[in-house]
Amino acid sequence: MYTCNLERMEDKIKTFSKFGDAGHGGITRYSLSPEAHQARAEFVKRMTAIGAVIETDDMANMYATLPGSVPNLKRIVMASHVDSVKNGGNYDGILGVLTAMEVLETITELNIPHSHPITAMIWTNEEGSLYSPAMMSSGVICGKFDKSKMLASKSILDPASTFGQALDASPYKGEEKNRLNPNDYMAMFETHIEQGPILEAAKKDIGVVTCVLGMVNYRIKAYGQADHAGTTPMSYRQDALYAAAQLLIYLHQELDKLDPALVYTTGEIKCHPNVHTVIPDEVDFSLDARHENPEVIKQVVDIIKNIPKEISKCKTGYELAWARDTVYFDKELVSCVKESADELGISNQYINSGAGHDAQFVSYMLPTTMIFVPSKDGHSHCEPEYTSPEQCTAGASVMLNAVLKADQK
Amino acid sequence: MYTCNLERMEDKIKTFSKFGDAGHGGITRYSLSPEAHQARAEFVKRMTAIGAVIETDDMANMYATLPGSVPNLKRIVMASHVDSVKNGGNYDGILGVLTAMEVLETITELNIPHSHPITAMIWTNEEGSLYSPAMMSSGVICGKFDKSKMLASKSILDPASTFGQALDASPYKGEEKNRLNPNDYMAMFETHIEQGPILEAAKKDIGVVTCVLGMVNYRIKAYGQADHAGTTPMSYRQDALYAAAQLLIYLHQELDKLDPALVYTTGEIKCHPNVHTVIPDEVDFSLDARHENPEVIKQVVDIIKNIPKEISKCKTGYELAWARDTVYFDKELVSCVKESADELGISNQYINSGAGHDAQFVSYMLPTTMIFVPSKDGHSHCEPEYTSPEQCTAGASVMLNAVLKADQK
Repeated sequence: MYTCNLERMEDKIKTFSKFGDAGHGGITRYSLSPEAHQARAEFVKRMTAIGAVIETDDMANMYATLPGSVPNLKRIVMASHVDSVKNGGNYDGILGVLTAMEVLETITELNIPHSHPITAMIWTNEEGSLYSPAMMSSGVICGKFDKSKMLASKSILDPASTFGQALDASPYKGEEKNRLNPNDYMAMFETHIEQGPILEAAKKDIGVVTCVLGMVNYRIKAYGQADHAGTTPMSYRQDALYAAAQLLIYLHQELDKLDPALVYTTGEIKCHPNVHTVIPDEVDFSLDARHENPEVIKQVVDIIKNIPKEISKCKTGYELAWARDTVYFDKELVSCVKESADELGISNQYINSGAGHDAQFVSYMLPTTMIFVPSKDGHSHCEPEYTSPEQCTAGASVMLNAVLKADQK
Repeated sequence: MYTCNLERMEDKIKTFSKFGDAGHGGITRYSLSPEAHQARAEFVKRMTAIGAVIETDDMANMYATLPGSVPNLKRIVMASHVDSVKNGGNYDGILGVLTAMEVLETITELNIPHSHPITAMIWTNEEGSLYSPAMMSSGVICGKFDKSKMLASKSILDPASTFGQALDASPYKGEEKNRLNPNDYMAMFETHIEQGPILEAAKKDIGVVTCVLGMVNYRIKAYGQADHAGTTPMSYRQDALYAAAQLLIYLHQELDKLDPALVYTTGEIKCHPNVHTVIPDEVDFSLDARHENPEVIKQVVDIIKNIPKEISKCKTGYELAWARDTVYFDKELVSCVKESADELGISNQYINSGAGHDAQFVSYMLPTTMIFVPSKDGHSHCEPEYTSPEQCTAGASVMLNAVLKADQK
């Protein structure tokens, strides 16, 4: 078994956390921003130093490849992203890139034999925080999103500027022929922070990810009548926010009766006209529900479809915003990860991913899997996001050995 | 008893509804806008035609005065506003001005004797819909608001432009010595639509207003922990929106136990970060409660102060935004209104005002009262706002005779 280098890993984490440093321990590093380009330049510098060949594709995805010992074999790729949400942390996305770099650096340093070419990759715009949607480039390359629509995606900071303009201005825009594809690549691994509290609570250093949870996202609605707060007797009112609050609690109570592994969130609420002196006439809130088992998701949908049609004189409604099925990762690759962690003596457990990742789209095209490392207090997408250097290095060691196992198959 | 003229009243309603016509049966006529200036010019034209003297003060309030028969008596003023909310109706505010004009026109036409000078007045910026706050000019003139702060109030459409700039640009800005004041004025009447359903339901054409309700406005808060919607097990969550929904329902249930004349509204909610994939960490909503009796308001405050300190693992809190005591109108003037309606044989009842009006501030300076006419379906601040021409004319007849009664005292 091979292990990665703690000091080198720590140095990378520290170095990359400067690119977009927002001054409070975290970063803001939007895709294709000057800060993201600094991170990409550092990637090129370090990968060139170990003799990797750099390529870029038409979505500015970047590939650094070490050749294998056997000619004409497909590549194994380890990929993640360098962009962040606004005021994000130093681990979400970037850790997967640093881990991929660490694997290549260790292979070079220890001169580890491998038959297949091995590639470290940066996906462009996974977060979608400046240009929506999230997972934009993997969506384009795996045929889920229309590229021309993506190029027209507007900056949330300046609606006059588009993702396409940022791409044209990037020194990392390359050729379509360099895209990740099933003819040239045999498998993809992605290391990521868990973004939840499960591994920490279970005192495990590695999550062997088996799937990305299926989900549904609904808008739940209540319709009332806007009237003056001071002049409308209580008995005349049709208060849509009062009705929506009852509906929200009803849904929590009903959903709590389902499988305890179900996660659901009522995270966004819109109230019209949302003025303290006016009785609300229209309220809608989001309901996001995720579970591995489609039967449980069906139970969620049944509960939504059976909400009371009227609450406190307000009509109710619902609308499906979107849904996705559970995406299972490649069984052989999952085994490679499990065996590596076990053989290295690193504590681990199977886990699923509640969040979406580029690996989810890639799994439709290539055998794919993911490795999770713990998130302190379960936090992510925020400045306190943290995983210890030891845990990050353990993640890299597991990925290194899992890639080498895949290389042998 | 004298009565006003239905056709002339109808003509005024129709004419003024063109100034700011938003194309769907209602108007948008912000204070000091070109549309509001059109309405003011029409006021000047019609009042000059009957020989009234026009004056304006430093807040651009306008006064059209018919002299009385006895020298050196104080004036009786009938006042309201010509500005509207965005997409408001053809009655809120403007009807009080048209009614004051109709009273002066009837006095002139029928050559009705009166000792005191009688004035029709336009208040500038009652709605506060372009430049906050509401009741700006009556607040300044009655010493409730600081004028220099009001001049600095920014336009909601263009933060670079202020109320003071609009005032300087208005042809109706006049001198401070022309302000409504207790030395030159003996009483103020304001006719207004009810903005609620009580008169219509009781089949009464006139509301004899006795007071403006006391009120409190609180912000109610819930504090949770933001975490990822897909990766945080339910048992780990502190969901501030779930807690806030429970708190909102708790408050409704407790407040419903108090006096049935209490009106309270939870009309505005803010949820942070308000993203469908994030568990909310901070929610606050407004609670506006109004009642004539300060004892009932105290019961409301006691309920707020005794909300559960923690709900579903979220801390709660509250904060007083503002409060006002019940403002009682002048008993003698209220009697003038009641007697006029009774003697005219117009159906009427005592009523209070849940909404704020300029009359509320003026009552601290002068004997003041209000007259309500019915609002169809209780609607106001919206395009369907409606009061029939017959009801509007009945309101004018009641104000005419009430003013003449005050003139005799």
